[in-house]
Amino acid sequence: MNKVKVGLMGMGTVGTGVYRLVEGHQEDLVKQTGMDIQISRILVQNREKKRTIAIDEDLLTEDPYTVLQDPEVDVIVEVMGGVEQTREYVLAALEQGKHVVTANKDLMAVHGGELLEKAVKHGCDLFYEASVAGGIPILRALVEGFSSDRITKMMGIVNGTSNYMLTKMSQEEESYESALKEAQELGYAEADPTSDVGGLDAARKMSILSTLGFHVGMNLDEVECVGMEEVTLEDIQYAKDLGYIIKLIGIAKQDDELIEVSVEPAMIKQSHPLASVNGVFNAVYVYGEAVGETMFYGPGAGELPTANAVVSDLVTVVKNMKLGVNGRGMLAPYREKKLKSDDEIFAKYFVRLLVDDQSGVLAQIAKKLAAYDVSIEQVIQKPHELEHKAELIIVTHQSTKKSIHHVLEELKSFEHIDAIKSLYRVEASE
Amino acid sequence: MNKVKVGLMGMGTVGTGVYRLVEGHQEDLVKQTGMDIQISRILVQNREKKRTIAIDEDLLTEDPYTVLQDPEVDVIVEVMGGVEQTREYVLAALEQGKHVVTANKDLMAVHGGELLEKAVKHGCDLFYEASVAGGIPILRALVEGFSSDRITKMMGIVNGTSNYMLTKMSQEEESYESALKEAQELGYAEADPTSDVGGLDAARKMSILSTLGFHVGMNLDEVECVGMEEVTLEDIQYAKDLGYIIKLIGIAKQDDELIEVSVEPAMIKQSHPLASVNGVFNAVYVYGEAVGETMFYGPGAGELPTANAVVSDLVTVVKNMKLGVNGRGMLAPYREKKLKSDDEIFAKYFVRLLVDDQSGVLAQIAKKLAAYDVSIEQVIQKPHELEHKAELIIVTHQSTKKSIHHVLEELKSFEHIDAIKSLYRVEASE
Repeated sequence: MNKVKVGLMGMGTVGTGVYRLVEGHQEDLVKQTGMDIQISRILVQNREKKRTIAIDEDLLTEDPYTVLQDPEVDVIVEVMGGVEQTREYVLAALEQGKHVVTANKDLMAVHGGELLEKAVKHGCDLFYEASVAGGIPILRALVEGFSSDRITKMMGIVNGTSNYMLTKMSQEEESYESALKEAQELGYAEADPTSDVGGLDAARKMSILSTLGFHVGMNLDEVECVGMEEVTLEDIQYAKDLGYIIKLIGIAKQDDELIEVSVEPAMIKQSHPLASVNGVFNAVYVYGEAVGETMFYGPGAGELPTANAVVSDLVTVVKNMKLGVNGRGMLAPYREKKLKSDDEIFAKYFVRLLVDDQSGVLAQIAKKLAAYDVSIEQVIQKPHELEHKAELIIVTHQSTKKSIHHVLEELKSFEHIDAIKSLYRVEASE
Repeated sequence: MNKVKVGLMGMGTVGTGVYRLVEGHQEDLVKQTGMDIQISRILVQNREKKRTIAIDEDLLTEDPYTVLQDPEVDVIVEVMGGVEQTREYVLAALEQGKHVVTANKDLMAVHGGELLEKAVKHGCDLFYEASVAGGIPILRALVEGFSSDRITKMMGIVNGTSNYMLTKMSQEEESYESALKEAQELGYAEADPTSDVGGLDAARKMSILSTLGFHVGMNLDEVECVGMEEVTLEDIQYAKDLGYIIKLIGIAKQDDELIEVSVEPAMIKQSHPLASVNGVFNAVYVYGEAVGETMFYGPGAGELPTANAVVSDLVTVVKNMKLGVNGRGMLAPYREKKLKSDDEIFAKYFVRLLVDDQSGVLAQIAKKLAAYDVSIEQVIQKPHELEHKAELIIVTHQSTKKSIHHVLEELKSFEHIDAIKSLYRVEASE
């Protein structure tokens, strides 16, 4: 039987999972591919390190080029992480005609276009299913399952850490700090959680999703990004009162060829399928003109879920090798990218204000909103613990992002308004 | 540019959708495949019939063999329905080297094995994504997304009609009859709803899912099938009180190579992702050893969702034609099929009994259950409107199907039990 030799770069959590699946599911892999898949080289940081699984020590190397330049290695599985250095390794692999499977969202979000072009040029496969929403085969669904449809909207809970924290805050009324501490203790959040709570991790995934879903080359810096650091228990409670739940959501929309992509804490109707995605689970909601509403739900990270996505890509590479069709299935972005400006982004908004509790204030605020074409769907006024103060919660009808920000800017200097406490986009409100 | 000619067999709801997508998305299809996809023949029942869309009348024919024997037709899209006659058409198409895309679950559940074998023999593709859960690309996910995993459990809400009815009964306390009438008025249910409410439609889909997920050749008559005709509003209310919801669920489980596949009304914990799948929506929950819990949610039927699945298959056929690799991607079942017997099927059960309201009755029932190794997790006793009668609700721990049926059989003749009102399997209880 033909052998396929795999160079595994990285032996952390995901690398260990890949090794386990390839070794543990040999029989099934042979049945599926007709080939004998062997991990023949493994790049590690330290050969001497104690490992949780038994590995032939002869496979281990600390030198990346021992893996990359081994003429017997057919496929590189890159699960070491990192961006600039890793880009060089992947380019080197592709230049030598080696196929690449990666789980690296940072790499793909920043250098995906260049790497995919290089892969096609050298007739190589470059697959990266594991880079978005770990165990959920969402990239395949977009590229193949909806190939004849026009996707107009994607909403993703694509960062497990922030979703875990928001779930804790929402269900158990834990503070942001306490939820973060717990996430760190459980290993869901890094010591420096900025990339997770600040939305950058989600933005990388949304950039990959929108590139594939909309057929445009989306750059990471074109994804508007607001983190969850400012979400308070009060906001969560007010959202609940109105029938909403707050999630850190990646939103990618396409209207008449115009595109917007953002990551932000947004309010989602409690009956929406995304609203019940809790804990570290991920989900991607996809709306296609033909298919309508669909959602893909599953684990967003973890050793074996992510490894499963990697090895499934590896199986596709091996099948393609057998058929001799590597490097042929990938579709370069073919649409011209036109990004919406802030006066082309329409949404409902939730605004919370601390105001003087006296007659005429609401009327004046409403007048100001009207001047900017922001119309009100719902108002709740609640007494505030400070004397003569009230909290005013306004949910708007569809307004432009530009208008809502302008009007809030003006309201800041309004004498009867003490503070603009919060602003959220309201999605999936029907 | 190369042309691909498609023979469309059937111009009902789905056929019309396929025609619309192929005509309406020409530009995207060319971009994705590099080929010009043309519908060149259309089989209709009546050429004279008024149609909702403009079609060149020269394409229409009432003779299937005009389509099947046209040497220019490369791909047959079968959306006419039917089983035996349609099987002959599909066999004829494959024998002439034409690829086939079908949305026909009845055909694939009954003759799938034979047709797939024929396809491979003639180097043809035979794809059927639309046959299960309409717009959800679940077959692709099973075959490709989880190719390196071992799937141990699938649970599907795969019949929209019954799910619509159960949603109405559950949310609006409508009776079975009223929910059925409404489903019929909305066109969700046929005049004869037997196949939907009796579970046969769902059983066909579960047979297809388990064949692909477990790599065995599952026959339709091996799927245990209980319909939703006996589900009452009382059962639904009792379920709610215990935190459950009743759904008509397809259950496919694999433990140590032993397989069970059934369709039955079952209780699902309200917090489970499947519990919030309402109305005509479908969802398939997949548990894999590596990936853990995933769920795929979307429309189960409808013109454009189903057409989208058909045309996405067509795109795959056309890509394969371009690469010259048709008929190579399909995996024949390679595992030996071992079905569980009733004493190998373990589940929790919900039992509702009408009993004499007198001391010692519960003790006697509990003793009888214990004699069959059925242990009790939860008991609720409620007074009944009949004097001196009580309703007894028992939720068991994991028991075998054999035991629970045996013990209920014995209890039937028990003097203090008036009636065994209902029995449900309890799934996803954690």
